Amino acid sequence: MLSKSQISLLRSLQNKKERKEQGLFLVEGYKSVVEFINSTYQIEAVYHTDSFDPKMLKLSQKINLYNISVTDIEKISSLKTPQEVIALVKIPLYPALNNAKLKQKFSLVLDGIQDPGNMGTIIRTADWFGITDIICSEDTVDAYNPKVVQASMGSLSRINMHYANIITLLPQIGLPVFGAMLNGDNIYQTNFGTEGLIVMGNEGNGMRPAVEQLINKAITIPRTGKAESLNVGIATALFCSEISRNSYNKVGSK
Amino acid sequence: MLSKSQISLLRSLQNKKERKEQGLFLVEGYKSVVEFINSTYQIEAVYHTDSFDPKMLKLSQKINLYNISVTDIEKISSLKTPQEVIALVKIPLYPALNNAKLKQKFSLVLDGIQDPGNMGTIIRTADWFGITDIICSEDTVDAYNPKVVQASMGSLSRINMHYANIITLLPQIGLPVFGAMLNGDNIYQTNFGTEGLIVMGNEGNGMRPAVEQLINKAITIPRTGKAESLNVGIATALFCSEISRNSYNKVGSK
Repeated sequence: MLSKSQISLLRSLQNKKERKEQGLFLVEGYKSVVEFINSTYQIEAVYHTDSFDPKMLKLSQKINLYNISVTDIEKISSLKTPQEVIALVKIPLYPALNNAKLKQKFSLVLDGIQDPGNMGTIIRTADWFGITDIICSEDTVDAYNPKVVQASMGSLSRINMHYANIITLLPQIGLPVFGAMLNGDNIYQTNFGTEGLIVMGNEGNGMRPAVEQLINKAITIPRTGKAESLNVGIATALFCSEISRNSYNKVGSK
Repeated sequence: MLSKSQISLLRSLQNKKERKEQGLFLVEGYKSVVEFINSTYQIEAVYHTDSFDPKMLKLSQKINLYNISVTDIEKISSLKTPQEVIALVKIPLYPALNNAKLKQKFSLVLDGIQDPGNMGTIIRTADWFGITDIICSEDTVDAYNPKVVQASMGSLSRINMHYANIITLLPQIGLPVFGAMLNGDNIYQTNFGTEGLIVMGNEGNGMRPAVEQLINKAITIPRTGKAESLNVGIATALFCSEISRNSYNKVGSK
């Protein structure tokens, strides 16, 4: 059984300030927990109910396992329907961004993404397309927010998340900066080359003007229908896909 | 002021069975309400609070407008933070699917999509890419679910939604049936031609086997990273984009 103060600590991690102070966050559900266990993340503890067999975690390292009551797991979970296993994980202290590591590949830059579902989907999509680094403006939603962790479906365990002042950082990186914008070049006719940063703006307002000024190449996803805009997670995926397709032989349509 | 029974009716529309019985659904928020007013949908009434000026709706037709209290709008809204304007809209009775109208274009087929957010995003994305028809299996989430309406950002007003037994329907349509599947042809090397149906399966389980058997061409979005899967809204968008890009001159990467 968990003590009142333990429950209180774990519950408090739904709050960004507390996560930052404690340097901890929660990962809920079997699949995601396994992905974090098999990652470079440090697992502080795994809480599970009687109905969950910890052998399923196939642990090769020693991890603090706690069998707790359904009532307790309900108390610490952020989900309406709590999962039967939750991991307490350390927020990694990323070393200062190493520009050399961003060369010869593409990374994402998020300027003020707010919706946790969008953020999680962006992380999951980046992971599908082999992107390893996401650089976020300081006002972008926290990647360790429970809804982001949930929506990323374990992919957060494999993506390096950087929070920084992107206005000062971007020029220092020294890579081509592509921006998803209105009135840019047609994405389908863009040669992205072999390396660069892809900047996506806030859901409602797009990029801040100071970020726009850092864009070397504005790119547009051409609209053939009538919707006013695309969801930012969708737009990000279309950029990732366009870059990824460059590694395949293209066939034209007839 | 709304009567108790009016409030009760409007609130009940959060429930699928009630929507079906009444043939009505709610559209919340200024932007979406305007899009429905300017569509072929029939508006039964518009409810707004004092803070909203109905002139903003630029009505060219007569619509029943009701100025109601903030308390009342909170009661009928499905949102945590209710908008200041809500429309009561008739669910259209689509005529039987006209196969001729699906020729020389692409339509989406959804087999058991469950998440309202995914469904709304799919409708919005389809609308961006000029797709006009979405055919849904009967167990697909209801398009008039408040969360779907919300996530579609008004695009629902322009897309023809069909619910049908897709297992019997698909062969009757007589168009090429492309399916998003594992172990199919590389989407980047696929010639989609000029018409067809794109089938997307359920979030967790994919397509039902009986639907899989109707696929003429299995298509895969190649994975270059490690995520186990893509979100279905994302995958749908990548198909829409690939089809759309065929209408542009392509440039290769070097």
